Amino acid sequence: MSHRSFSQWMGDIQQRTEAALDRALPAADVAPERLHQAMRYAVLGGGKRVRPLLVHAAGQLVQADNARLDRIASALELIHAYSLVHDDMPCMDDDALRRGKPTVHVEYDEATALLVGDALQTLAFQHVAEASLCDDPVRHIAMIRQLAIASGSRGMAGGQAIDLASVGLELNLSELEFMHIHKTGALIRASIALGAQCGRPLGDEAMATLDHVGKVVGLLFQVVDDILDAEADTATLGKTAGKDAANDKPTYVSLLGVSRARELAEEMCQDALASLAPFGDTAQRLSELTRFIVRRQF
Amino acid sequence: MSHRSFSQWMGDIQQRTEAALDRALPAADVAPERLHQAMRYAVLGGGKRVRPLLVHAAGQLVQADNARLDRIASALELIHAYSLVHDDMPCMDDDALRRGKPTVHVEYDEATALLVGDALQTLAFQHVAEASLCDDPVRHIAMIRQLAIASGSRGMAGGQAIDLASVGLELNLSELEFMHIHKTGALIRASIALGAQCGRPLGDEAMATLDHVGKVVGLLFQVVDDILDAEADTATLGKTAGKDAANDKPTYVSLLGVSRARELAEEMCQDALASLAPFGDTAQRLSELTRFIVRRQF
Repeated sequence: MSHRSFSQWMGDIQQRTEAALDRALPAADVAPERLHQAMRYAVLGGGKRVRPLLVHAAGQLVQADNARLDRIASALELIHAYSLVHDDMPCMDDDALRRGKPTVHVEYDEATALLVGDALQTLAFQHVAEASLCDDPVRHIAMIRQLAIASGSRGMAGGQAIDLASVGLELNLSELEFMHIHKTGALIRASIALGAQCGRPLGDEAMATLDHVGKVVGLLFQVVDDILDAEADTATLGKTAGKDAANDKPTYVSLLGVSRARELAEEMCQDALASLAPFGDTAQRLSELTRFIVRRQF
Repeated sequence: MSHRSFSQWMGDIQQRTEAALDRALPAADVAPERLHQAMRYAVLGGGKRVRPLLVHAAGQLVQADNARLDRIASALELIHAYSLVHDDMPCMDDDALRRGKPTVHVEYDEATALLVGDALQTLAFQHVAEASLCDDPVRHIAMIRQLAIASGSRGMAGGQAIDLASVGLELNLSELEFMHIHKTGALIRASIALGAQCGRPLGDEAMATLDHVGKVVGLLFQVVDDILDAEADTATLGKTAGKDAANDKPTYVSLLGVSRARELAEEMCQDALASLAPFGDTAQRLSELTRFIVRRQF
């Protein structure tokens, strides 16, 4: 059990993630320069780095090598960043602010934002194919497959499509959950599953437990996001607050109210923590991170 | 040496590519249905399948298994299809016609076109990580890396960015070549290189020769494309003709004139055929295909 505080650990991971992303991205003076500058603008210097934190926390379960965790964490963050760039575009959410800065299509232009998102996704897959993620190359290929499935039309991109289709509709709780399991949940779940494959192999039962934890954490992340979107202000969030209501999008808050949504997040947190208990001290960071995700203010 | 005619062989490859893509794509009745329908609309039922033809032609050099060639060919075609969907969007070329049909953003909507392109790219990487491409898993990972590099910011997507930046500019021949080596050349070059890695391993010298052939074929493909864009009509092309001139884009024809562009294509063809000569009969299809690419009318 590490006696470094959770906030120190979190700061360390955020810092090493920034450095890893900086190395993964092409330099700003490599041609085509404007594209590479815009890719760096989209990725560096901001973000909570939730997915990299989950990767490293899960890596603690299997004593994984930090360089391997950095690699899969960077890939997940590149996928997440590409999805934000495209999601902010005028034909999607049409948002001007992200991580406290103008969005890519505002700072550059729409065509560049389109290509930035495209090239960030490609870079994610290039990055995971450039050096080892684990000792077994067959498992390595399976991890690339898992990253793709979590990102694609039956994962994150599919969740975006369901989200688009749901604007102005009355969703019930299970439909809302179905959307979020895809839109944000798939990548969060993959973060835990992939981090846990970077070290000594776990058995099927342990992996199934972690998959359950990943599913729960993904949903509770979204419940808290909805609460923050409803309650916080734009300056605190670094992105436009209240936009779900403005866009007439169903949320946990619109369906349940803030008070019940908070209770739900707390129940999910307890579920995840109970599932992690059998892992003992090796689940320290993942448990702390789960509690942090529920209590975060941004 | 096969005595089946080239046009029979080409028809066979196009047919098996269509079937392979049909299997690779999620079914139209799988949720999210509209996204999956639009992905199928973007990919199936059209296109010359130049990249799959190159993969299979290169596969003949190494007696590669057809199922493996189908897999990498499908991935390359999915990447190509995603790039067309995004390239046709209003913020890029704003084109309404592709392969004789309305483009995806016209038939569906812009947000769907954005997600279709995103999800097709992801599917390409999922597909190459789902079954073996060659006997050695370490080489398999290197092939995934090569696919990503050819598609990304220093390959195809980078070429798109250079293309965007060049509208209205006076490029010289070497700048035009630099753009096309990326925009269309990278994926064509990768098609030959990847097809040639699906069977018995070739030596470094043979791979370097094939890389040269791939580079030359990529450029001559573009030279011919420019000639066709200048001379053919929209009905024959199945996409909007004359749009390069209309968009004030530099082309081989605008720089060299049609007659010199034709000579250049023929010189490149002879260069590629001479490079392929040492491979003897195993290069039959690749030589025939190179000649076909020069003489095509669409």
